[in-house]
Amino acid sequence: MQRYFIEKDNWQEDKIQIVADDYHHIVHVMRMEEGDTLIANRYDGQSAICRIHVIQETVVEATVEEWLQEESEPPIDIAIVQGLPKGDKWELILQKGTELGATHFIPFQADRSVVKWDHKKLKKKLPRWQKIVKEASEQSHRTKIPKVESVVTFEELKDISASYDWKFFAYEEATRDYKSFKLHNYFSQIEEGQSIIICIGPEGGFSEDEANGLKDAGFQAIRLGPRILRTETAPLYVLANLSYYFEEMR
Amino acid sequence: MQRYFIEKDNWQEDKIQIVADDYHHIVHVMRMEEGDTLIANRYDGQSAICRIHVIQETVVEATVEEWLQEESEPPIDIAIVQGLPKGDKWELILQKGTELGATHFIPFQADRSVVKWDHKKLKKKLPRWQKIVKEASEQSHRTKIPKVESVVTFEELKDISASYDWKFFAYEEATRDYKSFKLHNYFSQIEEGQSIIICIGPEGGFSEDEANGLKDAGFQAIRLGPRILRTETAPLYVLANLSYYFEEMR
Repeated sequence: MQRYFIEKDNWQEDKIQIVADDYHHIVHVMRMEEGDTLIANRYDGQSAICRIHVIQETVVEATVEEWLQEESEPPIDIAIVQGLPKGDKWELILQKGTELGATHFIPFQADRSVVKWDHKKLKKKLPRWQKIVKEASEQSHRTKIPKVESVVTFEELKDISASYDWKFFAYEEATRDYKSFKLHNYFSQIEEGQSIIICIGPEGGFSEDEANGLKDAGFQAIRLGPRILRTETAPLYVLANLSYYFEEMR
Repeated sequence: MQRYFIEKDNWQEDKIQIVADDYHHIVHVMRMEEGDTLIANRYDGQSAICRIHVIQETVVEATVEEWLQEESEPPIDIAIVQGLPKGDKWELILQKGTELGATHFIPFQADRSVVKWDHKKLKKKLPRWQKIVKEASEQSHRTKIPKVESVVTFEELKDISASYDWKFFAYEEATRDYKSFKLHNYFSQIEEGQSIIICIGPEGGFSEDEANGLKDAGFQAIRLGPRILRTETAPLYVLANLSYYFEEMR
């Protein structure tokens, strides 16, 4: 059944109004009719099967028939911080990272990021990123849409990280020779309900200044498996690993 | 240090000859000179630091200085069988799947594959796929290059699968409601040194005929985590999960 995230203002108890892009999708792409059903996700992560009772010129009205008990959200909060990569890799990370359970995406302007985005360009990019994440949430049956931030500086990143329970950064240099630095040693200390922030460098990795700054801010260096991963593969590996530990082993 | 896979014929005890694309890469891209070092991977998975002693017109000659003890290969054999997906997704799977530890890639013409490739088109594609996998192996510091097959039929797939210790296929329909169908229940029964073959459907999933055929051939249905993954995300999730269990928990 098709899913839609319905904004807070469009819920009135168990009645919903669907407008704009989702209206278009229901009426013109899915060609649904009155009496058809869909799944509506509420802003608080609840979801329900809803039946369409009227299709107007710009609004679809539907009513909750049955609240669902879904468990597609990970039991931990995971923020992926990514040094801005080249090309369309950031969009790949947003799409796949949403499927794999990230709850928060934060791009940052790293010393070795080749891409530099000014505020004007970013203003156009952010809505596009949010659209990718919303669509990936619908497709993967998530009940909450991950947040996407605008690009932050290194100082802003350190401020943001202060509220997280666990802080990691992928830093091969620090850990290459140590067999004891296996991910499970770290992940098995994390408890359900806690929050994790994980920083991944851009193509060239972190600069020494950044690595030192992250350590000073309380980040622990981790190694992401025995092979060298590309910058865009690294967050997907971490997310899949956290999913295995928290969702598939328990 | 840059890595190159050197074919069997170009090894003579501890002397190697580097030709063709790798020659070009060393001389024109990396601009190495006599006396510089590189890592050479031998056909049997051994690797060594080698020093260049002469650069000729079409051949770089180098000699082994030190054999390395690397552990970047997973302790299990993992074959990814993928129903042919649309667009360039297969190439994404080859690249990322190599980074994540697959040892064998087998595309198959599924009932719901939108793409249909004839033998003429495939003849052109296969060398390109092998190049992607070779380059990803070098970049990710693997010491063996995964094999890539040409597209197989469903009957061929069943024949190939006969030699594997464990056979799985991703089939959400069969497992949606069962909390006990967690991946760890399956993976924790697998032992080091064993072989696993995992089938992933194309965008539309497996047909009922295919699902029944796979079950008859001894494949077990598995669910890939609590969210619905796109066809190209599914093999990456499985591979990262196997890496976590076999490489990061032990």
